[in-house]
Order: sequence, then structure tokens, then C-alpha cells
Amino acid sequence: MSDAPSARGPSVRKIPDGDTHERLVCAECGYVQYDNPKIVVGAVCAHEDRLLLCRRAINPRKGYWVFPAGYLELNEAVEAGALREVREEAGIEVALDGLLAVYTIPRISQVQIIYRARLSDPHLAPGPETLEARLFRWDEVPWEELAFPTVHWALRHHREVADLAHFAPRANPPGETADYIKKTASP
Amino acid sequence: MSDAPSARGPSVRKIPDGDTHERLVCAECGYVQYDNPKIVVGAVCAHEDRLLLCRRAINPRKGYWVFPAGYLELNEAVEAGALREVREEAGIEVALDGLLAVYTIPRISQVQIIYRARLSDPHLAPGPETLEARLFRWDEVPWEELAFPTVHWALRHHREVADLAHFAPRANPPGETADYIKKTASP
Repeated sequence: MSDAPSARGPSVRKIPDGDTHERLVCAECGYVQYDNPKIVVGAVCAHEDRLLLCRRAINPRKGYWVFPAGYLELNEAVEAGALREVREEAGIEVALDGLLAVYTIPRISQVQIIYRARLSDPHLAPGPETLEARLFRWDEVPWEELAFPTVHWALRHHREVADLAHFAPRANPPGETADYIKKTASP
Repeated sequence: MSDAPSARGPSVRKIPDGDTHERLVCAECGYVQYDNPKIVVGAVCAHEDRLLLCRRAINPRKGYWVFPAGYLELNEAVEAGALREVREEAGIEVALDGLLAVYTIPRISQVQIIYRARLSDPHLAPGPETLEARLFRWDEVPWEELAFPTVHWALRHHREVADLAHFAPRANPPGETADYIKKTASP
């Protein structure tokens, strides 16, 4: 064991034998640390002709509106994660009825897996990460106060498939990487 | 700074304030390490009525057959990752023409995002992780020598949608979590 604490753990940046990318490697034991993209799961939830949005109580983008979404947990199925996020943020149970979209935001190594869902009961009970949860008709959506580009994408994609029983899920719009934060007016 | 090297880094298992799950936390600085599920991207690739399979040159399941797939890299879009894996393992360029399936294997915290793809040129050039790459007609597929349950699922799901221009992607078959390795005959 080395006496230099700084040498412990994966701290040397190199391309391991047989690999194609740089990784953090432990100089002592050769352990390779693989960092991986993160998965966000969520759902655009409709009740009749209204869409569920939650106003964020936390940063980033506190005070702005999103559909329920968050990081998939270890040992959790993607569908179960989406249902959990809806439950945690809006306090409701929904039924998933299709995979709406798979988006990638390469700059932050994030993949978003977004389902289409339906509410049977419109009684909302926001959790601690949500200032307010509301159902909006299309022409009431606070477009200038949406938190992230992917919220714009997902709402538009939901509208395209709202009346379809079966549909191919959407991906990033052409040319869009979401590698920016859209400038929006303050709420 | 503590003199006890063992106390450095995220080494204490606890539920951080405001969180719902146990994480590894640094006792010194409070840093919280979030471990996340990993994303595998891949593609079931067809050339006319034949499907591409690669025989694995690496463990796990060395010598068994898979469709091209592997871990998504940091800063990589999911579609780009699937194309890269096909290129690395079979030495070919394909066109993705639909999202075939999103599977979760909760036991190993893995999400598989699998596309449907077409080869224009059937000349295969296997890479270092592949012993052999071949195109199989349906009745030639080495069912007893497939590497993982998700390979079975994806081939069957591909067959269901092979003639459809637009289709909803598949998920785990009912009751299936892939939390086992199917017993298969030796090759």
C-alpha cells in the first residue's frame, strides 16, 4: 500500500489496454472507473384535454414548469421510475400508455426516457420538490416559463401523438441537442 | 484533513437530508456519490431476410451470440452510440429505422435501448470484441447459443415489427426481468 493518499483510488486519466476512451484508473491496483451517462425518466400526463405540469421547488430552474421527471434509481425498471416520479412530484397515480420519446443531452451526458400517461383522478397533491402542480389546456401552457428545452419538445411531441393508440417514440428534434438553456422570461 | 485515509471519499452509507434512498457519503466533506443505472445501446440489424449476430470474443458469455450492443459513452447521443457499437463489433455502417425496444434488467441496474437497423452492404468485418459476425435466416438463428435473455427478446420483437414502418417499441416481456441467465447448451 502506498503512503501517498493522493495516489489511492481512480485518479490517473488514461486509456486502458483494449479500450478506446480515457478513463480514471487507480495507479495502485489498476481499477478502472467507468463514468456513464445518467438516465432521467418521466411522463407527460394528460387528463382529458389538459396536461400536467409541476413548478419546480428546487434548482436548477426553480420556479419554472416541468412534466414529472427525475433520475432512475439503481435496481429500478424504467416504467417503475417514471411512475415513482409522477407520484413524488404530483402525488398521483397514472397509467403509462406509450413511450413518448427518448432524448439525449450529450453535453451533460443525460438520456431522457419519457412516457405518455393518463390521469383518472385530477386531484393533485404536490410533493416537496414541487411548488405547485396544475393541469393546463394547450393554450394555457406557460411556454415562456418552461424549465428546459426537453419540456418544450415533449409537450409538442405529446400533441402530435395524443390521439394515436400506437406510435413511434420521438427523438431530439432535427438539429437540436438541448446543449443550451433556452432563454425564457422570468415567471 | 483527517489522518485516517479510510475516512476519505464517499464511504459512509446513509440517506442524505431530503433524499429517499441510501447513498455513499463522504464523512469529511459531505460529498454524496450518486450511483446510477447504466445504459446499453445496440441494434438488431437486418439485411433482406437475414439478421446480424456477433459471437462474443469477451466475457461475460464469450463464444455466445448477440446483436451489436455496448455501454453508451459520456457525451454521446443514444443513436450515435448504437451506430458506433455496430461499427466496432461488425465493421459495418447501418441506417437506424426505428426504436425497437427499451428493456430494464433491474438486478444489474441496466437499461437497454435497442434500435432496428438495415444493412445495405452485407460485407462484415468483425472487430476485436467479436469472434465471428454472420447473417442468419430466422430458422438458422442459434437459439441455444444466444448470450443473454434480451437477445431472445429483441430477435422476437424484431420479427413482430419487421414489416411495419411505424410501431411502438417493445418493453420486457410480461413477467420477465432477465434477472437470471438462461441456461443454454454449450456452443
